Amino acid sequence: MSAPTDREQQVLDRIDKARRRRAKVREERVTLAHGSGGKATQTLVEAIFLDAFRNPLLEPLEDAATFTAGETRLALTTDSFVVSPLFFPGGDIGDLAVNGTVNDLAVSGARPLYLTAGFILEEGFGIEDLVRIVHSMRDAAERAGVDVVTGDTKVVQRGKADGCYVNTAGVGVLEHSHALGVATAKPGDAVLVSGPIGEHGVTIMLARGELDIDADLESDTAPLNGLVADLLGAVDGVRAMRDATRGGVATILNEVAKAADVAVVVDENAIPVRDEVRGASELLGIDPMYVACEGRMVVVVDGAQADAALAALRAHPLGEGAAKIGRIVDDPPGLVLLNTAFGGTRIVDLLVGDPLPRIC
Amino acid sequence: MSAPTDREQQVLDRIDKARRRRAKVREERVTLAHGSGGKATQTLVEAIFLDAFRNPLLEPLEDAATFTAGETRLALTTDSFVVSPLFFPGGDIGDLAVNGTVNDLAVSGARPLYLTAGFILEEGFGIEDLVRIVHSMRDAAERAGVDVVTGDTKVVQRGKADGCYVNTAGVGVLEHSHALGVATAKPGDAVLVSGPIGEHGVTIMLARGELDIDADLESDTAPLNGLVADLLGAVDGVRAMRDATRGGVATILNEVAKAADVAVVVDENAIPVRDEVRGASELLGIDPMYVACEGRMVVVVDGAQADAALAALRAHPLGEGAAKIGRIVDDPPGLVLLNTAFGGTRIVDLLVGDPLPRIC
Repeated sequence: MSAPTDREQQVLDRIDKARRRRAKVREERVTLAHGSGGKATQTLVEAIFLDAFRNPLLEPLEDAATFTAGETRLALTTDSFVVSPLFFPGGDIGDLAVNGTVNDLAVSGARPLYLTAGFILEEGFGIEDLVRIVHSMRDAAERAGVDVVTGDTKVVQRGKADGCYVNTAGVGVLEHSHALGVATAKPGDAVLVSGPIGEHGVTIMLARGELDIDADLESDTAPLNGLVADLLGAVDGVRAMRDATRGGVATILNEVAKAADVAVVVDENAIPVRDEVRGASELLGIDPMYVACEGRMVVVVDGAQADAALAALRAHPLGEGAAKIGRIVDDPPGLVLLNTAFGGTRIVDLLVGDPLPRIC
Repeated sequence: MSAPTDREQQVLDRIDKARRRRAKVREERVTLAHGSGGKATQTLVEAIFLDAFRNPLLEPLEDAATFTAGETRLALTTDSFVVSPLFFPGGDIGDLAVNGTVNDLAVSGARPLYLTAGFILEEGFGIEDLVRIVHSMRDAAERAGVDVVTGDTKVVQRGKADGCYVNTAGVGVLEHSHALGVATAKPGDAVLVSGPIGEHGVTIMLARGELDIDADLESDTAPLNGLVADLLGAVDGVRAMRDATRGGVATILNEVAKAADVAVVVDENAIPVRDEVRGASELLGIDPMYVACEGRMVVVVDGAQADAALAALRAHPLGEGAAKIGRIVDDPPGLVLLNTAFGGTRIVDLLVGDPLPRIC
């Protein structure tokens, strides 16, 4: 991120103070909820990681850290992937790992350049499966226009992993002057999503075969860098983009509300959800708002440019289903409000617990 | 790496051809040997990863990929850490993960700037242990002068990991004009190590308590960026540096011999090995030449500058025990020869199998 404005700095300082006061991990042991992307993850990140590593680049807790090296503005990000099963309709851990890191760079406003690939393999894992995963990574990298330029392989004994875990880190260049970040959202801004939500998460749940549901669904895993480039080229009022992975759209909206000290008001009827996702979610007892996507992003944009932004998204194959789902208002700061399909209003909080472990 | 000279390109082309011809994974399943850093790892990397991801930045298979973004020359690297036990004399998985990535950047000639941290945690892992690891990472980062600027946390079910795995990736800047790379080694060059070898690996073996050996040993885990900066500042004839991690010094020397198509001749008597390491290695039935260090590097330097390089290394606290252990000659190309303590000569090949799993 470029140097914050005075207002942004005030917001950052206030958030920082609140974080220091509030964040404390109360559990004695790691639970699956700590990996959910929801409330427990946020507490873990703030109370342990941010507290120890505290520095101005980490502080905004954006999807990628941005900084200047030499004369070049860069973005750096990482994600580990532990999805189960490894292969699922629409993708596998390989393209997920490439797209995930490409997307974290893209939504931070960077043009993704190079990726790393770190494999943790379980003794006994099939070489054929490994080759399939690696070829999927190669194809995904080619689609996204990035190269995997360095890597690492570790093998652990049988029973000390689950086949194959993949870490990718990525570097990209920031070539524009957009000052992006969820803390820059302002009252009057519009909130968009780039397409129907929840497909990746529901696909994974169904692929596990624990439920006898038959739905014609595929993961939405895809590289968003082309879509982002089109959007940033079309409008100059983009405040922030976030790909809606673990924790889903609801988590992103909460991050916006808290980081910018604003309220986010969302209309349930406006949120694009495929019938198959809605149906399966009801049977699974989960709200699609919390379900991971791997090829969708939330965009906060100057309200006056919402239509132009929407048009730019819809002109791209990965944004055909884009929709305006809400807006930023002053009050109540820090909260996400949902105008429900039934005419009521409720608060959409961070996820507690983890109904969907190992979705990515 | 800067653009290769014609001679270097010829060597690269030849190696590439040899790799395409030879590398084939014969096993159907991943074995611990695939993670050893030895022959099986090399085959896996060349036959599967290099074959799929092939690009000019990955091709040299150096510790870090180097490239130019904007006007800035950068290095990018990654390593996953799965060491067992997580805590050991002299360090833990946390400082190991920071130093390992700092060192991969340093030996590629880069000044390390920023790290990522990706955690894969097993459900039930103690929060106190996690905090201890994170604080150790923080302290190591501070010592090395780098910041952890972005990260990721995943949690997997009990029995799907071994407490805590850590991935670090790192970015550094290349600020000098040294053209480094093992393929640039030339007959007449000298081979140095920066200190006594094998301490990390033997410490880990002993920490597992499987053998009733009592030795006053600590891991040598340390950040080498200061030492490298002093060396590069003192002499301009450094051809290549490699930190001698998995596979030990023997593996590095083989990489030099094969990449540069030269012979490496090493004098056993000249290799610094502490008595405790020598003694424990004999009892463990392993050769210290293959044992991982985490704070030592092999340096190939113009023979005429060997003494100056040695003096520069010895002037730094982490290089006090530096020694000249060998030299580069023409024949036999691709091989490492050891003049033994008993007056004989033997070939030092890549490690087959993995006598020391999960050392880092």
